[in-house]
Amino acid sequence: MTETASRPTLEAVAARAGVSRATVSRVVNGGEGVRETLVERVRRAVEELGYVPNQAARSLVTRRHDAVAVVIAEPETRVFADPFFALQLRGISKELTVHDSQLVLLLTEGREDYARVGRYLAGGHVDGALVFSLHLDDPLPGLIHGAGVPTVFGGRPGWSDGMRVNGPTVYVDSDNRGGAREAVRHLVGLGHTRIAHITGPLDQTCAVDRLDGFRDVMVDADPRLIVGSDFTPVGGERAMRELLERCPELDAVFAANDLSASGALRVLRERGRRVPEDVAVVGFDDMLPVAEQTDPPLTTVRQDIEEMGRLMARLLLRGLEQRGRDEQGSVGGAPSSVVLPTTLVRRASA
Amino acid sequence: MTETASRPTLEAVAARAGVSRATVSRVVNGGEGVRETLVERVRRAVEELGYVPNQAARSLVTRRHDAVAVVIAEPETRVFADPFFALQLRGISKELTVHDSQLVLLLTEGREDYARVGRYLAGGHVDGALVFSLHLDDPLPGLIHGAGVPTVFGGRPGWSDGMRVNGPTVYVDSDNRGGAREAVRHLVGLGHTRIAHITGPLDQTCAVDRLDGFRDVMVDADPRLIVGSDFTPVGGERAMRELLERCPELDAVFAANDLSASGALRVLRERGRRVPEDVAVVGFDDMLPVAEQTDPPLTTVRQDIEEMGRLMARLLLRGLEQRGRDEQGSVGGAPSSVVLPTTLVRRASA
Repeated sequence: MTETASRPTLEAVAARAGVSRATVSRVVNGGEGVRETLVERVRRAVEELGYVPNQAARSLVTRRHDAVAVVIAEPETRVFADPFFALQLRGISKELTVHDSQLVLLLTEGREDYARVGRYLAGGHVDGALVFSLHLDDPLPGLIHGAGVPTVFGGRPGWSDGMRVNGPTVYVDSDNRGGAREAVRHLVGLGHTRIAHITGPLDQTCAVDRLDGFRDVMVDADPRLIVGSDFTPVGGERAMRELLERCPELDAVFAANDLSASGALRVLRERGRRVPEDVAVVGFDDMLPVAEQTDPPLTTVRQDIEEMGRLMARLLLRGLEQRGRDEQGSVGGAPSSVVLPTTLVRRASA
Repeated sequence: MTETASRPTLEAVAARAGVSRATVSRVVNGGEGVRETLVERVRRAVEELGYVPNQAARSLVTRRHDAVAVVIAEPETRVFADPFFALQLRGISKELTVHDSQLVLLLTEGREDYARVGRYLAGGHVDGALVFSLHLDDPLPGLIHGAGVPTVFGGRPGWSDGMRVNGPTVYVDSDNRGGAREAVRHLVGLGHTRIAHITGPLDQTCAVDRLDGFRDVMVDADPRLIVGSDFTPVGGERAMRELLERCPELDAVFAANDLSASGALRVLRERGRRVPEDVAVVGFDDMLPVAEQTDPPLTTVRQDIEEMGRLMARLLLRGLEQRGRDEQGSVGGAPSSVVLPTTLVRRASA
């Protein structure tokens, strides 16, 4: 360790040259995108201090590009249609900006384009990736693994916690199962007995977890009261129609997100069912303004989506720093996954 | 030219290796992000054909990254709040996908982050940039110029057509002035005489052009009938309140976009003014579903926003190809700017 400690550090070069660590890093790694005068200053400082950009020192510089890719495993049309993604990106954008790292959102038309995303990730354009909305048979994790970029996932990936994708799997999630349990217990507490569930897409862990939470409480639920859907308002409408056909006597609905709850509410109104008198409805997300603007305003399970985005970015940047320190022999653990608590927000619908 | 013609071309190498031109390009430029087996095949083909990746041949390969940056000169929050940007991105995404080029959306919190965007653009991560929603005193064009990336602008930039930013200025725009004229003529044709205008942000050329179109028809417009706004629904509400205070006798409003028109309609309804009987309203954009869902549905000037995005991407890619051919001595012009026509869409509000 003495050898490493006695060597002039990157920080010392930055201080001597009067530039940021990032600038020294860029110069050491080829000087792309740095003004010639700055390159000159850094080179002079390197020479004066006898700084040797050896392998260990270079790997300390893990934020070589000061840029982080965000990949949402959904077609571009859905990224802009579902406010969930805008909120998550808001948190990511704020956090990356604090660390002067550029948010690089890689948009696609669909799964056919993922190979291209993998090539971009592998091409040395970003320091790491934030990936969310994975589906169970998604080719993205494999491509990310191949690209070799450190990654933090939004939502628990569908593989076992032991699996490694460029390091231990790190994710940020909400307590989907606990939140769902609380929603359904609330309905039970109000005296409802024929409680239906409109699921999210069951190739996503958050939807599976919410279904599990529903089942934790409704242990003997009539299978006709569970109907699959896709997190969209139109999907919620379709599911609600199907539920009313199957079980006209239902007295409550727990929808796996607010958008599908908004669709369910529209169908209930169409059919003349009063909410909450005839049918109580609870959503999930506390997506604003949606949850406040439904008729009636929606009781729902709040998860802090923006905070999830912020945490994903924070964990990734912390992991990048840790990697650098590890290679210098310092002690410290890689960041671990975080599961955020949820809270029930009571409005008029249940 | 004979020398160039007699040399084996990049295309020949691609054909011999059984890979795409882009793959040969990547290998020739260092092989980053290409599978080792493909690198090997390309190297063999290069050797067999005696291909020399000289400067001219290398500059033909202007799509080195198969990625295009999109920079919207607005904070991330506005990018996701205004459906205009989603539509333009939709067109860009479709067109880039056809050409297997990755859409790289660079998001910011605001103008303070533009230097970082400039660094990313200069860092050799993209083949070119699509930039829209520029404001008159925007530092972005200077940074883009410094970054040296070929760029196509969405909306006519506020400088004279002669100015060059990494080549001649190329932009895609709608006929904002002509469209505004048609909107106001329509109101005049309906017999309205006290016609007001809610402007867009006048540091953007599209807003200035629409104001000019309004003035072309209302040559002696009472200045109190023109009120500045910002393209948002809340801004439209504020502007409408101000107009009603200044000129309670107004009988028509031309709003510079549909979102501000939707705000104006809300205020008119609040104040008990019937639309179109008491006050006729025309918007601009034909933004769906907004324009159809206002009460009453909005008469507006349609511009094809998605097509604008598609054209921007097409012009950029064509320009990149042309650059390559130019350096090989072939004849051909750089793409020129395109101004798309607009059409009046009549609904119930005027």
